[in-house]
Amino acid sequence: MKNRVITVSREFGSGGHTIGRRVAERLNIPCYDNELIQKIVEHSGFMADYIREEGEYAPSGWFAATLSSRRMGPTNQDRLWVIQHNIICDLAEKESCVIVGRCADYILRDKANCLRVFIHSSMEHRAERIVKEYGERDISPEQRLTDKDKRRAAYYRFYTDMKWGRAQNYHITLDSGELGIDKCVDIVAGLY
Amino acid sequence: MKNRVITVSREFGSGGHTIGRRVAERLNIPCYDNELIQKIVEHSGFMADYIREEGEYAPSGWFAATLSSRRMGPTNQDRLWVIQHNIICDLAEKESCVIVGRCADYILRDKANCLRVFIHSSMEHRAERIVKEYGERDISPEQRLTDKDKRRAAYYRFYTDMKWGRAQNYHITLDSGELGIDKCVDIVAGLY
Repeated sequence: MKNRVITVSREFGSGGHTIGRRVAERLNIPCYDNELIQKIVEHSGFMADYIREEGEYAPSGWFAATLSSRRMGPTNQDRLWVIQHNIICDLAEKESCVIVGRCADYILRDKANCLRVFIHSSMEHRAERIVKEYGERDISPEQRLTDKDKRRAAYYRFYTDMKWGRAQNYHITLDSGELGIDKCVDIVAGLY
Repeated sequence: MKNRVITVSREFGSGGHTIGRRVAERLNIPCYDNELIQKIVEHSGFMADYIREEGEYAPSGWFAATLSSRRMGPTNQDRLWVIQHNIICDLAEKESCVIVGRCADYILRDKANCLRVFIHSSMEHRAERIVKEYGERDISPEQRLTDKDKRRAAYYRFYTDMKWGRAQNYHITLDSGELGIDKCVDIVAGLY
């Protein structure tokens, strides 16, 4: 792979999306996040919201889990995995870019020119951040974070057979709450 | 805590020791690694080699495990833990410094001015490095690394109740094999 790709995995609410976008701006390369979802919409026919949830999170609750049973063959989630896998490989072949989430770190793991980044921060920092970014909900921000973390880790584990957030899976991991978003952008862009 | 402390946790053979020492030189502050062991010798009366092994690794094999049984009260390892805990807290109170290994990241976890770093690299990189640094042994470098990793993780788990190498435990984790020792030194010193 001649192109250079940065994959940004992140805990929900840690600012990984913002960091990915700002790194891409700094380096003058595209950042795929919502754009990636649009590409999956075009190739799959699934709705964007469905892709946003099912393409990165394990189903929540027994009812959803039953609907995604594999006894009947590949699930929609499995089909989505294949489509997003192919799109991510195509993107990496086509151009240098930043890709946020969607297990891109795992999908591109054997590519030499891929920098794998993981962004996390404390529950307090993230809770404050998601309320500011997305507003209040019926359930507490801590509950929303715990639920998202669990489901994202389960999804990652299922499709990659690796542990999400294990330092050894990444070239660099950063605590965006303690180091600050600006510093994280500087470090990641500096490594490119 | 007014002093600024950098703790460097590391996989065996990843170059964490070298990175810690070079960061300290760059910042003109002391680095505690072998010096820490000397301090523990003075306070405990244990031999340096014993401290080197027992103060960071879980016992290996059933015979050693039996000798360190807690049914008879605190083990030598427990005594060592208390001594090294107190010495590390004293150092952090006394001066800005770099501390390599010995669960210093956990011991100083509630101190505001502490930067927690974890250094790792792939089995191949580390195997090559330990043969170059410490020479060949009867058992393969991969076996030595696996043994050391396992025992260090078990020790860390026992005394801190946290998972060793989990990204969320550190402000920054770096793959020294992929990024290079020089780059790691630049980034860590730059965060001080």
